[in-house]
Amino acid sequence: MPSTSAFTTSPTESLRAGPDVDLASVLAQSTPGFPGGKKMGQIKLAEESAQLSELQAKLFAESRFGGESSLLVVLQAMDTAGKGGIVRHVVGAVDPQGVKHYAFKAPTAAEKRHDFLWRIKKQLPGAGMIGVFDRSHYEDVLIQRVRGFAEPAVIEERYGAIRDFEAALVASGTRIVKIMLHISPEEQKKRLADRLEHEDKHWKYNPADLDERELWAEYQTAYQLAIERTATPDAPWYVVPADRKWYARIAVQQLIIDALQDMQLSWPPATFDVAAEKARLAQS
Amino acid sequence: MPSTSAFTTSPTESLRAGPDVDLASVLAQSTPGFPGGKKMGQIKLAEESAQLSELQAKLFAESRFGGESSLLVVLQAMDTAGKGGIVRHVVGAVDPQGVKHYAFKAPTAAEKRHDFLWRIKKQLPGAGMIGVFDRSHYEDVLIQRVRGFAEPAVIEERYGAIRDFEAALVASGTRIVKIMLHISPEEQKKRLADRLEHEDKHWKYNPADLDERELWAEYQTAYQLAIERTATPDAPWYVVPADRKWYARIAVQQLIIDALQDMQLSWPPATFDVAAEKARLAQS
Repeated sequence: MPSTSAFTTSPTESLRAGPDVDLASVLAQSTPGFPGGKKMGQIKLAEESAQLSELQAKLFAESRFGGESSLLVVLQAMDTAGKGGIVRHVVGAVDPQGVKHYAFKAPTAAEKRHDFLWRIKKQLPGAGMIGVFDRSHYEDVLIQRVRGFAEPAVIEERYGAIRDFEAALVASGTRIVKIMLHISPEEQKKRLADRLEHEDKHWKYNPADLDERELWAEYQTAYQLAIERTATPDAPWYVVPADRKWYARIAVQQLIIDALQDMQLSWPPATFDVAAEKARLAQS
Repeated sequence: MPSTSAFTTSPTESLRAGPDVDLASVLAQSTPGFPGGKKMGQIKLAEESAQLSELQAKLFAESRFGGESSLLVVLQAMDTAGKGGIVRHVVGAVDPQGVKHYAFKAPTAAEKRHDFLWRIKKQLPGAGMIGVFDRSHYEDVLIQRVRGFAEPAVIEERYGAIRDFEAALVASGTRIVKIMLHISPEEQKKRLADRLEHEDKHWKYNPADLDERELWAEYQTAYQLAIERTATPDAPWYVVPADRKWYARIAVQQLIIDALQDMQLSWPPATFDVAAEKARLAQS
Protein backbone atom coordinates (compact mmCIF):
# COMPACT_ATOMS: atom_id res chain seq x y z
CA MET A 1 0.00 0.00 0.00
CA PRO A 2 1.51 3.34 -1.00
CA SER A 3 2.25 5.94 1.65
CA THR A 4 -0.34 8.70 1.89
CA SER A 5 2.46 11.24 1.83
CA ALA A 6 3.86 10.05 -1.49
CA PHE A 7 2.67 10.43 -5.05
CA THR A 8 1.47 7.14 -6.53
CA THR A 9 2.05 8.66 -9.96
CA SER A 10 4.34 11.65 -10.37
CA PRO A 11 2.67 14.87 -11.53
CA THR A 12 5.29 14.91 -14.30
CA GLU A 13 3.39 11.98 -15.72
CA SER A 14 -0.18 12.51 -14.58
CA LEU A 15 -0.49 16.26 -15.15
CA ARG A 16 1.32 16.41 -18.49
CA ALA A 17 -0.82 18.13 -21.09
CA GLY A 18 0.03 17.41 -24.71
CA PRO A 19 -1.43 18.69 -27.98
CA ASP A 20 -4.42 16.43 -27.32
CA VAL A 21 -5.25 18.15 -24.02
CA ASP A 22 -8.90 18.49 -23.05
CA LEU A 23 -8.96 21.20 -20.44
CA ALA A 24 -12.67 20.79 -19.75
CA SER A 25 -12.07 17.26 -18.54
CA VAL A 26 -9.56 18.26 -15.84
CA LEU A 27 -11.28 18.59 -12.48
CA ALA A 28 -9.95 21.63 -10.63
CA GLN A 29 -10.72 20.12 -7.25
CA SER A 30 -9.00 16.79 -7.97
CA THR A 31 -5.68 15.66 -6.51
CA PRO A 32 -4.23 13.27 -9.13
CA GLY A 33 -1.75 10.76 -7.87
CA PHE A 34 -1.85 11.87 -4.25
CA PRO A 35 -3.87 9.65 -1.90
CA GLY A 36 -3.25 11.76 1.21
CA GLY A 37 -5.27 14.80 2.23
CA LYS A 38 -4.37 18.36 3.18
CA LYS A 39 -2.37 17.50 6.26
CA MET A 40 -0.30 14.93 4.38
CA GLY A 41 0.19 17.46 1.61
CA GLN A 42 1.54 20.05 4.02
CA ILE A 43 3.92 17.51 5.50
CA LYS A 44 5.10 16.54 2.04
CA LEU A 45 5.68 20.17 1.06
CA ALA A 46 7.91 20.68 4.09
CA GLU A 47 9.72 17.37 3.65
CA GLU A 48 10.54 17.80 -0.02
CA SER A 49 11.82 21.34 0.47
CA ALA A 50 15.19 19.98 1.53
CA GLN A 51 15.52 17.96 -1.64
CA LEU A 52 14.48 20.87 -3.83
CA SER A 53 17.00 23.05 -2.01
CA GLU A 54 19.83 20.64 -2.58
CA LEU A 55 19.04 20.29 -6.25
CA GLN A 56 18.93 24.07 -6.63
CA ALA A 57 22.26 24.39 -4.82
CA LYS A 58 23.83 21.89 -7.22
CA LEU A 59 22.47 23.76 -10.23
CA PHE A 60 23.93 26.97 -8.82
CA ALA A 61 27.25 25.35 -7.90
CA GLU A 62 27.67 23.85 -11.35
CA SER A 63 27.30 27.26 -12.95
CA ARG A 64 30.28 28.49 -10.95
CA PHE A 65 32.41 25.96 -12.77
CA GLY A 66 31.23 26.42 -16.31
CA GLY A 67 27.80 24.80 -16.11
CA GLU A 68 25.36 26.55 -18.42
CA SER A 69 22.12 24.95 -17.34
CA SER A 70 19.18 26.84 -15.93
CA LEU A 71 15.53 26.14 -15.25
CA LEU A 72 12.60 28.28 -16.30
CA VAL A 73 9.24 27.79 -14.62
CA VAL A 74 6.36 29.51 -16.40
CA LEU A 75 3.27 30.11 -14.28
CA GLN A 76 -0.02 30.96 -15.97
CA ALA A 77 -3.46 31.05 -14.44
CA MET A 78 -6.74 32.87 -14.00
CA ASP A 79 -6.72 35.42 -11.17
CA THR A 80 -6.60 34.06 -7.61
CA ALA A 81 -5.47 30.62 -8.80
CA GLY A 82 -2.48 30.80 -6.49
CA LYS A 83 0.59 31.81 -8.48
CA GLY A 84 1.70 33.96 -5.58
CA GLY A 85 1.35 31.09 -3.14
CA ILE A 86 3.45 28.85 -5.36
CA VAL A 87 6.18 31.46 -5.48
CA ARG A 88 5.95 31.95 -1.75
CA HIS A 89 5.72 28.37 -0.53
CA VAL A 90 7.47 26.30 -3.18
CA VAL A 91 10.07 28.60 -4.69
CA GLY A 92 10.44 30.41 -1.38
CA ALA A 93 12.01 27.32 0.15
CA VAL A 94 15.19 27.60 -1.92
CA ASP A 95 18.06 30.06 -1.62
CA PRO A 96 16.90 33.50 -2.84
CA GLN A 97 20.35 33.86 -4.38
CA GLY A 98 19.52 31.21 -6.93
CA VAL A 99 16.08 32.46 -7.96
CA LYS A 100 15.18 35.10 -10.52
CA HIS A 101 11.50 35.91 -10.18
CA TYR A 102 9.74 38.20 -12.58
CA ALA A 103 6.08 39.22 -12.69
CA PHE A 104 5.00 40.41 -16.12
CA LYS A 105 2.39 43.16 -16.15
CA ALA A 106 0.50 44.64 -19.10
CA PRO A 107 3.17 45.72 -21.59
CA THR A 108 4.31 49.31 -21.37
CA ALA A 109 4.29 51.67 -24.34
CA ALA A 110 8.02 51.05 -24.80
CA GLU A 111 7.55 47.28 -24.69
CA LYS A 112 4.75 47.46 -27.24
CA ARG A 113 7.10 49.00 -29.76
CA HIS A 114 9.07 45.75 -29.81
CA ASP A 115 8.31 42.17 -30.75
CA PHE A 116 6.30 40.47 -27.99
CA LEU A 117 9.26 38.29 -27.01
CA TRP A 118 11.60 41.24 -26.56
CA ARG A 119 10.73 41.91 -22.92
CA ILE A 120 10.63 38.19 -22.18
CA LYS A 121 14.19 37.62 -23.37
CA LYS A 122 15.44 40.29 -20.99
CA GLN A 123 14.19 38.36 -17.96
CA LEU A 124 15.50 34.90 -18.74
CA PRO A 125 17.42 33.15 -15.96
CA GLY A 126 21.20 33.11 -16.24
CA ALA A 127 23.27 29.96 -15.88
CA GLY A 128 22.66 28.20 -12.57
CA MET A 129 19.46 30.09 -11.84
CA ILE A 130 15.86 29.05 -11.44
CA GLY A 131 13.77 31.60 -13.31
CA VAL A 132 10.14 31.99 -12.37
CA PHE A 133 7.80 33.80 -14.75
CA ASP A 134 4.62 34.98 -13.06
CA ARG A 135 2.70 35.40 -16.31
CA SER A 136 4.81 35.35 -19.45
CA HIS A 137 4.81 35.46 -23.24
CA TYR A 138 1.65 33.36 -23.04
CA GLU A 139 -0.31 36.47 -22.13
CA ASP A 140 0.27 37.43 -25.76
CA VAL A 141 -1.90 34.52 -26.89
CA LEU A 142 -4.29 34.55 -23.90
CA ILE A 143 -5.59 37.96 -22.84
CA GLN A 144 -4.56 39.34 -26.22
CA ARG A 145 -6.68 36.74 -27.96
CA VAL A 146 -9.65 37.03 -25.60
CA ARG A 147 -9.63 40.81 -25.65
CA GLY A 148 -8.84 41.05 -29.34
CA PHE A 149 -5.75 43.18 -28.65
CA ALA A 150 -4.06 41.50 -31.63
CA GLU A 151 -5.42 40.28 -34.96
CA PRO A 152 -6.23 36.54 -35.15
CA ALA A 153 -3.55 36.09 -37.82
CA VAL A 154 -0.96 37.66 -35.52
CA ILE A 155 -2.00 35.39 -32.66
CA GLU A 156 -1.64 32.40 -35.00
CA GLU A 157 1.91 33.42 -35.87
CA ARG A 158 2.79 33.80 -32.22
CA TYR A 159 2.25 30.11 -31.43
CA GLY A 160 4.97 29.26 -33.92
CA ALA A 161 7.20 32.06 -32.67
CA ILE A 162 6.82 30.73 -29.13
CA ARG A 163 7.69 27.18 -30.19
CA ASP A 164 10.81 28.41 -31.97
CA PHE A 165 11.79 30.65 -29.07
CA GLU A 166 11.41 27.89 -26.52
CA ALA A 167 13.22 25.34 -28.69
CA ALA A 168 16.19 27.72 -28.94
CA LEU A 169 16.12 28.25 -25.19
CA VAL A 170 16.18 24.51 -24.55
CA ALA A 171 19.03 24.10 -27.02
CA SER A 172 21.04 26.68 -25.10
CA GLY A 173 20.69 24.78 -21.81
CA THR A 174 17.48 26.06 -20.25
CA ARG A 175 15.03 23.47 -19.07
CA ILE A 176 11.43 24.67 -19.38
CA VAL A 177 8.45 23.69 -17.25
CA LYS A 178 5.17 25.38 -18.19
CA ILE A 179 2.40 25.29 -15.67
CA MET A 180 -1.25 26.24 -15.87
CA LEU A 181 -2.85 26.44 -12.45
CA HIS A 182 -6.37 25.26 -13.14
CA ILE A 183 -9.00 26.73 -10.87
CA SER A 184 -12.81 26.50 -11.07
CA PRO A 185 -15.00 29.61 -11.39
CA GLU A 186 -16.73 28.65 -8.13
CA GLU A 187 -13.44 28.58 -6.25
CA GLN A 188 -12.41 31.91 -7.79
CA LYS A 189 -15.65 33.42 -6.55
CA LYS A 190 -14.84 32.32 -2.99
CA ARG A 191 -11.32 33.71 -3.19
CA LEU A 192 -12.45 37.06 -4.58
CA ALA A 193 -15.08 37.26 -1.84
CA ASP A 194 -12.36 36.59 0.70
CA ARG A 195 -10.31 39.49 -0.67
CA LEU A 196 -13.30 41.78 -0.37
CA GLU A 197 -13.95 40.58 3.16
CA HIS A 198 -10.53 41.38 4.62
CA GLU A 199 -9.08 44.86 4.74
CA ASP A 200 -5.54 43.57 4.56
CA LYS A 201 -6.41 41.95 1.21
CA HIS A 202 -8.19 44.88 -0.43
CA TRP A 203 -4.99 45.91 -2.17
CA LYS A 204 -5.03 42.58 -4.01
CA TYR A 205 -8.51 43.18 -5.39
CA ASN A 206 -9.05 44.93 -8.67
CA PRO A 207 -12.54 45.57 -10.02
CA ALA A 208 -11.17 44.73 -13.47
CA ASP A 209 -10.73 41.13 -12.26
CA LEU A 210 -14.50 40.74 -12.42
CA ASP A 211 -14.50 41.83 -16.06
CA GLU A 212 -12.01 39.09 -16.84
CA ARG A 213 -14.14 36.67 -14.87
CA GLU A 214 -17.06 37.34 -17.22
CA LEU A 215 -14.90 35.96 -20.01
CA TRP A 216 -14.17 32.65 -18.29
CA ALA A 217 -15.17 30.42 -21.20
CA GLU A 218 -13.19 32.49 -23.70
CA TYR A 219 -10.11 32.20 -21.49
CA GLN A 220 -10.49 28.44 -21.22
CA THR A 221 -10.61 28.25 -25.00
CA ALA A 222 -7.52 30.42 -25.27
CA TYR A 223 -5.66 28.22 -22.77
CA GLN A 224 -6.78 25.09 -24.56
CA LEU A 225 -5.44 26.45 -27.86
CA ALA A 226 -2.20 27.74 -26.33
CA ILE A 227 -1.45 24.33 -24.85
CA GLU A 228 -2.42 22.48 -28.04
CA ARG A 229 -0.11 24.61 -30.12
CA THR A 230 2.88 24.95 -27.82
CA ALA A 231 3.11 21.69 -25.88
CA THR A 232 6.28 20.05 -27.16
CA PRO A 233 8.37 17.22 -25.74
CA ASP A 234 11.09 19.70 -24.79
CA ALA A 235 8.88 22.47 -23.46
CA PRO A 236 5.99 20.59 -21.88
CA TRP A 237 2.83 21.97 -20.34
CA TYR A 238 1.32 20.71 -17.11
CA VAL A 239 -2.24 21.46 -16.04
CA VAL A 240 -2.28 21.53 -12.25
CA PRO A 241 -5.65 21.27 -10.49
CA ALA A 242 -5.56 24.25 -8.15
CA ASP A 243 -8.80 24.48 -6.20
CA ARG A 244 -6.90 22.87 -3.36
CA LYS A 245 -3.91 25.10 -2.74
CA TRP A 246 -2.02 22.43 -0.84
CA TYR A 247 -2.25 20.06 -3.80
CA ALA A 248 -1.15 22.64 -6.36
CA ARG A 249 1.88 23.41 -4.23
CA ILE A 250 3.12 19.84 -3.83
CA ALA A 251 2.39 19.12 -7.48
CA VAL A 252 4.43 22.09 -8.69
CA GLN A 253 7.16 21.28 -6.19
CA GLN A 254 7.36 17.76 -7.61
CA LEU A 255 7.39 19.03 -11.20
CA ILE A 256 10.38 21.21 -10.37
CA ILE A 257 12.15 18.44 -8.48
CA ASP A 258 11.63 15.99 -11.34
CA ALA A 259 12.93 18.49 -13.88
CA LEU A 260 16.05 19.20 -11.82
CA GLN A 261 16.68 15.52 -11.16
CA ASP A 262 16.45 14.81 -14.84
CA MET A 263 19.25 17.34 -15.39
CA GLN A 264 21.71 14.96 -13.67
CA LEU A 265 23.31 17.65 -11.55
CA SER A 266 26.33 16.97 -9.40
CA TRP A 267 28.62 18.83 -7.04
CA PRO A 268 31.56 20.29 -8.95
CA PRO A 269 34.80 18.52 -8.03
CA ALA A 270 37.59 20.54 -6.43
CA THR A 271 39.74 22.43 -8.92
CA PHE A 272 42.54 22.68 -6.37
CA ASP A 273 44.70 20.29 -4.40
CA VAL A 274 42.60 19.63 -1.30
CA ALA A 275 45.48 18.27 0.81
CA ALA A 276 47.72 21.20 -0.10
CA GLU A 277 45.01 23.70 0.80
CA LYS A 278 44.43 21.98 4.13
CA ALA A 279 48.14 22.35 4.88
CA ARG A 280 48.12 26.01 3.85
CA LEU A 281 45.07 26.69 6.01
CA ALA A 282 46.62 24.99 9.01
CA GLN A 283 49.63 27.32 8.69
CA SER A 284 47.53 30.44 8.37
CA MET B 1 12.91 38.85 34.27
CA PRO B 2 13.08 39.15 30.49
CA SER B 3 12.21 36.18 28.30
CA THR B 4 15.22 34.26 27.02
CA SER B 5 13.70 34.40 23.56
CA ALA B 6 13.52 38.19 23.46
CA PHE B 7 16.14 40.87 23.04
CA THR B 8 16.73 42.86 26.20
CA THR B 9 18.16 45.62 24.04
CA SER B 10 17.35 45.76 20.36
CA PRO B 11 20.29 45.25 17.98
CA THR B 12 19.26 48.53 16.37
CA GLU B 13 20.52 50.12 19.54
CA SER B 14 23.23 47.80 20.77
CA LEU B 15 24.94 47.01 17.45
CA ARG B 16 24.86 50.51 16.01
CA ALA B 17 28.33 51.61 14.94
CA GLY B 18 28.91 55.32 14.63
CA PRO B 19 31.93 57.36 13.54
CA ASP B 20 33.46 56.53 16.93
CA VAL B 21 33.31 52.78 16.30
CA ASP B 22 36.13 50.64 17.70
CA LEU B 23 35.95 47.43 15.73
CA ALA B 24 38.67 45.75 17.77
CA SER B 25 36.50 45.99 20.87
CA VAL B 26 33.59 44.06 19.38
CA LEU B 27 33.73 40.40 20.37
CA ALA B 28 32.80 38.24 17.39
CA GLN B 29 31.54 35.46 19.66
CA SER B 30 29.32 37.70 21.77
CA THR B 31 25.52 37.84 21.62
CA PRO B 32 24.64 41.39 22.71
CA GLY B 33 21.18 41.87 24.12
CA PHE B 34 20.12 38.25 23.80
CA PRO B 35 20.13 36.22 27.01
CA GLY B 36 18.98 32.97 25.38
CA GLY B 37 21.23 30.43 23.69
CA LYS B 38 21.23 28.75 20.31
CA LYS B 39 17.94 26.91 20.75
CA MET B 40 16.16 30.08 21.84
CA GLY B 41 17.71 31.88 18.93
CA GLN B 42 16.39 29.34 16.47
CA ILE B 43 12.93 29.62 17.97
CA LYS B 44 13.08 33.37 17.75
CA LEU B 45 14.15 33.28 14.10
CA ALA B 46 11.15 31.14 13.22
CA GLU B 47 8.75 33.17 15.33
CA GLU B 48 9.72 36.56 13.98
CA SER B 49 9.56 35.40 10.37
CA ALA B 50 5.82 35.96 10.34
CA GLN B 51 6.22 39.55 11.47
CA LEU B 52 8.95 40.22 8.93
CA SER B 53 6.76 38.72 6.23
CA GLU B 54 3.82 40.90 7.12
CA LEU B 55 5.93 44.05 7.13
CA GLN B 56 7.39 43.14 3.74
CA ALA B 57 3.91 42.50 2.36
CA LYS B 58 2.79 45.94 3.52
CA LEU B 59 5.81 47.58 1.93
CA PHE B 60 5.01 45.77 -1.32
CA ALA B 61 1.28 46.54 -1.12
CA GLU B 62 1.89 50.24 -0.53
CA SER B 63 3.97 50.44 -3.68
CA ARG B 64 1.00 49.23 -5.70
CA PHE B 65 -0.86 52.35 -4.64
CA GLY B 66 1.79 54.97 -5.16
CA GLY B 67 4.08 54.22 -2.24
CA GLU B 68 7.69 54.93 -3.14
CA SER B 69 9.47 53.43 -0.17
CA SER B 70 11.97 50.64 -0.38
CA LEU B 71 14.56 49.07 1.89
CA LEU B 72 18.18 48.39 1.04
CA VAL B 73 20.17 45.98 3.18
CA VAL B 74 23.91 46.08 2.55
CA LEU B 75 25.84 43.01 3.68
CA GLN B 76 29.61 43.19 4.02
CA ALA B 77 31.92 40.70 5.64
CA MET B 78 35.09 38.67 5.48
CA ASP B 79 34.72 35.34 3.65
CA THR B 80 32.68 32.63 5.42
CA ALA B 81 31.12 35.15 7.81
CA GLY B 82 27.66 34.00 6.79
CA LYS B 83 26.22 36.44 4.25
CA GLY B 84 24.74 33.52 2.36
CA GLY B 85 23.10 32.15 5.48
CA ILE B 86 21.53 35.53 6.21
CA VAL B 87 20.09 35.67 2.71
CA ARG B 88 18.86 32.11 3.01
CA HIS B 89 17.42 32.09 6.51
CA VAL B 90 16.39 35.68 7.17
CA VAL B 91 15.55 37.13 3.76
CA GLY B 92 14.42 33.71 2.55
CA ALA B 93 11.46 33.83 4.91
CA VAL B 94 9.72 36.61 2.98
CA ASP B 95 7.94 36.48 -0.36
CA PRO B 96 10.54 36.10 -3.17
CA GLN B 97 8.38 38.47 -5.19
CA GLY B 98 9.31 41.32 -2.90
CA VAL B 99 13.06 40.73 -2.74
CA LYS B 100 15.75 41.89 -5.13
CA HIS B 101 18.98 40.14 -4.27
CA TYR B 102 22.23 41.00 -5.97
CA ALA B 103 25.71 39.60 -5.37
CA PHE B 104 28.45 41.93 -6.56
CA LYS B 105 31.56 40.25 -7.92
CA ALA B 106 34.88 41.78 -8.94
CA PRO B 107 34.01 44.55 -11.43
CA THR B 108 34.11 43.57 -15.10
CA ALA B 109 36.11 45.47 -17.69
CA ALA B 110 32.93 47.26 -18.77
CA GLU B 111 32.09 48.22 -15.19
CA LYS B 112 35.59 49.52 -14.60
CA ARG B 113 35.16 52.04 -17.38
CA HIS B 114 32.46 53.76 -15.32
CA ASP B 115 32.35 55.49 -11.97
CA PHE B 116 32.37 52.91 -9.15
CA LEU B 117 28.75 53.68 -8.27
CA TRP B 118 27.49 53.09 -11.82
CA ARG B 119 26.94 49.36 -11.45
CA ILE B 120 25.51 49.84 -7.95
CA LYS B 121 22.80 52.22 -9.14
CA LYS B 122 21.61 49.67 -11.66
CA GLN B 123 20.77 47.18 -8.91
CA LEU B 124 18.88 49.39 -6.49
CA PRO B 125 15.52 48.08 -5.28
CA GLY B 126 12.42 49.55 -6.88
CA ALA B 127 9.48 50.89 -4.88
CA GLY B 128 8.04 48.31 -2.51
CA MET B 129 11.06 46.05 -2.71
CA ILE B 130 13.62 44.86 -0.21
CA GLY B 131 17.00 45.04 -1.90
CA VAL B 132 19.82 42.91 -0.57
CA PHE B 133 23.37 43.71 -1.61
CA ASP B 134 25.74 40.80 -1.03
CA ARG B 135 28.86 42.94 -1.15
CA SER B 136 28.40 46.44 -2.51
CA HIS B 137 30.03 49.80 -3.25
CA TYR B 138 31.94 49.27 -0.02
CA GLU B 139 34.21 46.83 -1.82
CA ASP B 140 35.57 49.94 -3.51
CA VAL B 141 36.94 51.18 -0.20
CA LEU B 142 37.71 47.75 1.27
CA ILE B 143 39.48 45.31 -1.04
CA GLN B 144 40.47 48.21 -3.27
CA ARG B 145 42.15 49.89 -0.33
CA VAL B 146 43.77 46.75 1.04
CA ARG B 147 45.01 45.59 -2.35
CA GLY B 148 45.96 49.06 -3.52
CA PHE B 149 43.72 48.79 -6.60
CA ALA B 150 43.01 52.50 -6.30
CA GLU B 151 45.17 55.43 -5.21
CA PRO B 152 44.74 56.52 -1.57
CA ALA B 153 43.44 59.91 -2.73
CA VAL B 154 40.78 58.19 -4.83
CA ILE B 155 39.72 56.04 -1.88
CA GLU B 156 39.44 59.18 0.22
CA GLU B 157 37.14 60.77 -2.31
CA ARG B 158 34.96 57.69 -2.42
CA TYR B 159 33.92 57.98 1.23
CA GLY B 160 32.39 61.34 0.42
CA ALA B 161 30.85 60.05 -2.80
CA ILE B 162 29.27 57.19 -0.85
CA ARG B 163 27.84 59.55 1.76
CA ASP B 164 26.33 61.74 -0.94
CA PHE B 165 25.00 58.77 -2.87
CA GLU B 166 23.37 57.25 0.17
CA ALA B 167 21.93 60.58 1.32
CA ALA B 168 20.27 60.99 -2.09
CA LEU B 169 18.93 57.46 -1.90
CA VAL B 170 17.41 58.09 1.51
CA ALA B 171 15.89 61.34 0.27
CA SER B 172 14.20 59.45 -2.55
CA GLY B 173 12.52 57.01 -0.16
CA THR B 174 15.00 54.20 0.30
CA ARG B 175 15.74 53.17 3.84
CA ILE B 176 19.31 51.91 4.24
CA VAL B 177 20.63 49.36 6.73
CA LYS B 178 24.35 48.62 6.43
CA ILE B 179 25.63 45.51 8.12
CA MET B 180 29.09 44.21 8.75
CA LEU B 181 29.10 40.59 9.83
CA HIS B 182 31.97 40.45 12.25
CA ILE B 183 33.74 37.12 12.41
CA SER B 184 36.97 36.14 14.19
CA PRO B 185 39.95 34.73 12.28
CA GLU B 186 39.74 31.58 14.42
CA GLU B 187 36.15 30.99 13.40
CA GLN B 188 36.98 31.61 9.75
CA LYS B 189 39.69 28.99 9.98
CA LYS B 190 37.17 26.44 11.22
CA ARG B 191 34.71 27.29 8.48
CA LEU B 192 37.31 27.09 5.72
CA ALA B 193 38.47 23.74 7.13
CA ASP B 194 34.87 22.57 6.99
CA ARG B 195 34.63 23.52 3.31
CA LEU B 196 37.79 21.55 2.60
CA GLU B 197 36.46 18.59 4.55
CA HIS B 198 33.22 18.12 2.63
CA GLU B 199 33.04 17.37 -1.06
CA ASP B 200 29.69 19.08 -1.43
CA LYS B 201 31.33 22.29 -0.19
CA HIS B 202 34.46 22.25 -2.34
CA TRP B 203 32.80 24.51 -4.89
CA LYS B 204 32.55 27.20 -2.23
CA TYR B 205 36.27 27.11 -1.53
CA ASN B 206 38.66 29.31 -3.42
CA PRO B 207 42.41 29.18 -2.76
CA ALA B 208 42.44 32.97 -3.15
CA ASP B 209 40.39 33.19 0.07
CA LEU B 210 43.55 32.24 1.95
CA ASP B 211 45.42 35.14 0.38
CA GLU B 212 42.75 37.52 1.66
CA ARG B 213 42.96 35.85 5.05
CA GLU B 214 46.65 36.78 5.26
CA LEU B 215 45.53 40.42 5.13
CA TRP B 216 43.14 40.17 8.06
CA ALA B 217 44.49 43.15 9.99
CA GLU B 218 44.52 45.35 6.90
CA TYR B 219 40.89 44.47 6.21
CA GLN B 220 39.90 45.31 9.78
CA THR B 221 41.52 48.69 9.37
CA ALA B 222 39.72 49.24 6.09
CA TYR B 223 36.37 48.31 7.68
CA GLN B 224 37.07 50.55 10.64
CA LEU B 225 37.76 53.48 8.32
CA ALA B 226 34.79 52.76 6.07
CA ILE B 227 32.44 52.77 9.04
CA GLU B 228 34.00 55.87 10.56
CA ARG B 229 33.60 57.80 7.34
CA THR B 230 30.20 56.61 6.16
CA ALA B 231 28.14 55.97 9.30
CA THR B 232 25.47 58.67 9.21
CA PRO B 233 22.18 58.97 11.10
CA ASP B 234 20.27 58.21 7.90
CA ALA B 235 22.49 55.43 6.58
CA PRO B 236 23.66 53.70 9.74
CA TRP B 237 26.14 50.88 10.11
CA TYR B 238 25.67 47.90 12.40
CA VAL B 239 28.48 45.58 13.42
CA VAL B 240 26.94 42.16 14.01
CA PRO B 241 28.98 39.59 15.94
CA ALA B 242 28.87 36.58 13.63
CA ASP B 243 30.88 33.74 15.14
CA ARG B 244 27.56 32.32 16.25
CA LYS B 245 25.48 32.02 13.11
CA TRP B 246 22.21 31.80 15.00
CA TYR B 247 22.88 35.11 16.71
CA ALA B 248 23.86 36.91 13.52
CA ARG B 249 20.64 35.75 11.91
CA ILE B 250 18.27 36.93 14.64
CA ALA B 251 20.19 40.17 14.99
CA VAL B 252 19.93 40.96 11.25
CA GLN B 253 16.30 39.86 11.25
CA GLN B 254 15.60 42.31 14.07
CA LEU B 255 17.50 45.12 12.33
CA ILE B 256 15.31 44.65 9.26
CA ILE B 257 12.11 44.41 11.31
CA ASP B 258 12.97 47.58 13.23
CA ALA B 259 13.73 49.46 10.03
CA LEU B 260 10.46 48.40 8.42
CA GLN B 261 8.46 49.18 11.55
CA ASP B 262 9.97 52.61 11.67
CA MET B 263 8.65 53.21 8.14
CA GLN B 264 5.07 53.22 9.50
CA LEU B 265 3.69 50.99 6.79
CA SER B 266 0.00 50.26 6.49
CA TRP B 267 -2.35 48.29 4.26
CA PRO B 268 -3.57 50.47 1.40
CA PRO B 269 -7.28 51.25 1.78
CA ALA B 270 -9.68 50.09 -0.92
CA THR B 271 -9.83 52.39 -3.94
CA PHE B 272 -13.21 50.93 -4.90
CA ASP B 273 -16.66 50.63 -3.34
CA VAL B 274 -16.38 47.42 -1.35
CA ALA B 275 -20.14 46.89 -0.98
CA ALA B 276 -20.74 47.48 -4.69
CA GLU B 277 -18.01 45.01 -5.62
CA LYS B 278 -19.46 42.40 -3.27
CA ALA B 279 -22.81 42.79 -5.03
CA ARG B 280 -21.18 42.53 -8.48
CA LEU B 281 -19.28 39.41 -7.44
CA ALA B 282 -22.43 37.78 -6.06
CA GLN B 283 -24.07 38.28 -9.46
CA SER B 284 -21.15 36.87 -11.41
